[in-house]
This record gives sequence, C-alpha cells and structure tokens, in this order.
Amino acid sequence: MKTKDRIIQASLELFNAHGERNVTTNHIASHLNISPGNLYYHFRNKEEIIRNIFEKYVQHMEVSFEPVKPSEDAVEFLSNYLDAVFSALFHFSFLYDNLPVIMARDPELKSQYLEIHNKMMDKINALVLGLQNAEVINIDHDDVDDFSNIIKQQVTFWISYCKTSQEDTSITDELIYNGLLKVLLLFKPYVTSEFTDVVKDLTARYKSLANVES
Amino acid sequence: MKTKDRIIQASLELFNAHGERNVTTNHIASHLNISPGNLYYHFRNKEEIIRNIFEKYVQHMEVSFEPVKPSEDAVEFLSNYLDAVFSALFHFSFLYDNLPVIMARDPELKSQYLEIHNKMMDKINALVLGLQNAEVINIDHDDVDDFSNIIKQQVTFWISYCKTSQEDTSITDELIYNGLLKVLLLFKPYVTSEFTDVVKDLTARYKSLANVES
Repeated sequence: MKTKDRIIQASLELFNAHGERNVTTNHIASHLNISPGNLYYHFRNKEEIIRNIFEKYVQHMEVSFEPVKPSEDAVEFLSNYLDAVFSALFHFSFLYDNLPVIMARDPELKSQYLEIHNKMMDKINALVLGLQNAEVINIDHDDVDDFSNIIKQQVTFWISYCKTSQEDTSITDELIYNGLLKVLLLFKPYVTSEFTDVVKDLTARYKSLANVES
Repeated sequence: MKTKDRIIQASLELFNAHGERNVTTNHIASHLNISPGNLYYHFRNKEEIIRNIFEKYVQHMEVSFEPVKPSEDAVEFLSNYLDAVFSALFHFSFLYDNLPVIMARDPELKSQYLEIHNKMMDKINALVLGLQNAEVINIDHDDVDDFSNIIKQQVTFWISYCKTSQEDTSITDELIYNGLLKVLLLFKPYVTSEFTDVVKDLTARYKSLANVES
C-alpha cells in the first residue's frame, strides 16, 4: 500500500477508535512509524486527511445505498437499508460522533456533506414510499417528509446520543444494532396487519444481532 | 448586575448567537467593555464560564420539567412538556449544538449532564406512561423505554441536525417549533381514536407557531 493510502487508512482507524478530536497528525505518524515530515509531505494538515477520508465516505454511501427498485421485495429493501446504515455508522463512526464540528470547521466539506445528505433524504423518501406502495406501512402522505427526516436524524445522531447518555461508550456492533432497532420501532406503528409478522421477524433478527432478549 | 453575572449572561448570549466554539474569553470581555484581566479575575477560563451556565441550565430543567401528576389532563401535560422543551432548546441552544464536544472536554460537566439526562428520561417515561394510562396513546409496554429514548434523542439533537442539514441555520422560534412538531409526529401513530382530534388540534397550534401551513 502506498504511504498516502496507509496514512488515510490509519487515520480512519485512529479517529474511529479514539475520536477525531483526540488524534493529532503526530499520533498518526507515530502509529505508522513514519516521521511527521513524511506525513506532511503527503498532507498539509489533519483537515486534508479528513477530506480524503470523506471521499471514501461518499463512495461508500453511493455504493451501499442503492436506489429502491419498486418491483422488488419491500421488506428486503428495509433490511438492506438497515444493513447499509450499519455499515456506514460502523466504518465512519468518528464522523457521526463529531459531525457539527467537522462541518463548521470546513465549509467545503460541509457543502459535500449537504449533497450526500440530500441524496440520502431522497433514498429514505423512496424507501418509505416503496413500503407504502407495497402496503407494508400505512402513513399519511403529508407526513412522509417529516417521517423521513426523523429517520435520518435518528440514524445520524445515534452515536452522538450514545456518547452523551452514558459514562463510557465504545462503538460496538451491539451498540449500532441497538440504533437500527430504534429505526425499526419508528416504522412499527405504521406497519399494516398483513406485514406485522414480517417486521416482527426482522426485529427479532436485529435483536439477536444486538444481543437483546426478544 | 454584578460583573460575574454580567459575564455569565453575555457569554450565554454570545454562545447561542455564534456557537460556543467561535466565542473566546476575549470576545466576551470586549463585548462587555471590560478588560480580559477583569474577566480572568472572575473566571479562570471559558470552561469555568460554561460550568456556571450549566448550573443555570440544571436549574432551568428542574423548574420547567415538572413531574407528571396522574390526576391531571394528560394532553395538557404533553403540551406543557413540549413548551418546556421549547424553552430549554431556545435558552441553551449552544449546548445542544455542541454537546458531545463540551461533554468530552470536561468529565465533571459530563457527570452532571448524565444526572440531568437520567432525570429527564424518567420524566419522559412518566409522560409516556401518563398518556398511556389516560388512554391518549396505545403503545406496547415493552416499547416504552425505547420510545422514550427516541423522543429524548430527537429533542437533544434537533439543533445539531438542523445545523448539519442546511447551509445556514439560525436558531429561530420557527426552527424549534418545527422540532416539536417532529416529536408530536412520533406520538401520532399511537394516538387512540378517542384523542385523534385533540392531538390534531395540538399539532395545529404548533404548526401555526412554526408558521407551517396545516
């Protein structure tokens, strides 16, 4: 692997493990056994490393959140969506832990984030409308936008919420699956009687992944 | 007003207006037309000012979120809860904008926040159970804890969500009332047929405060 890529990879791992605000370029260089000068040859500062990681994040989001094809199984789509959310939160947890600060610090990154945010809103809207059309859920058409925003907020700030509501929080599989269960609970009251059992099975699957008694 | 109190008051205003991370002790001193030395006579650093503001926050939370008395009107309690949420978000918006960072920086403040957080969780739980007992809503008993956590997360990160989902965000009445409408939407699918109209009226009231067409 090229040094530049090794720096990006190591930075992502260190940011996720210790929080972006606790990791300096010196930590990153020392972790890789390279000199700070060598790191600065590749990146002017930490912001530039974050921008490179953010490119990977954007690619990850594009690939893992595929558009909803209305012909296919709607519940399968819900499950695929939740798996994609899991993967994004798990691989880029440091972003979700510190989003407002990282965005406030770098207006260009914020613009890029807003672009991704809007694409994600469209995909969540398509998911909700897909479930509605397949009669999996029954929600007032006027509420769809607000409901999609609630889901987006719930996902985006799940890690921040966990970190501010208990003494010590490490980002584990279980923690993220517990967040997905909250998203499933948001859908639950809208589920039609025909699909109650299907969504119950889906919930049981994520509960076992989250190590929660169902 | 004593200089110490003037510093606390001005800091709160500046933090809310510009974001805590953009305001230095020099800004605060210059805003009050006092010397930095005079400010440092009262507070060692910005952290100490924030701790003093946090004391006010704790008092505010204690006073405005009164415990639910089961004998009284359940919908009135929901409305009182929402008004109290409005007031907390409005008066201490800078905290909600930067909570994970402020907590990570000051472990003692984090412990105090966790205490308040747990009290608030108890109050939200009591609110949900109060609405359940008054048959305003019908929710599975097993879901009450998760539902209360969803409400808490929705409220706590509403301002962070707004700030990261649009280019420029100023904290206005309308913005906060739009957040309260999201909380009402969380309750909506659980509302019993008997109370549908009551909750619809409550929603209409907040929509008019948020300047949203209903």
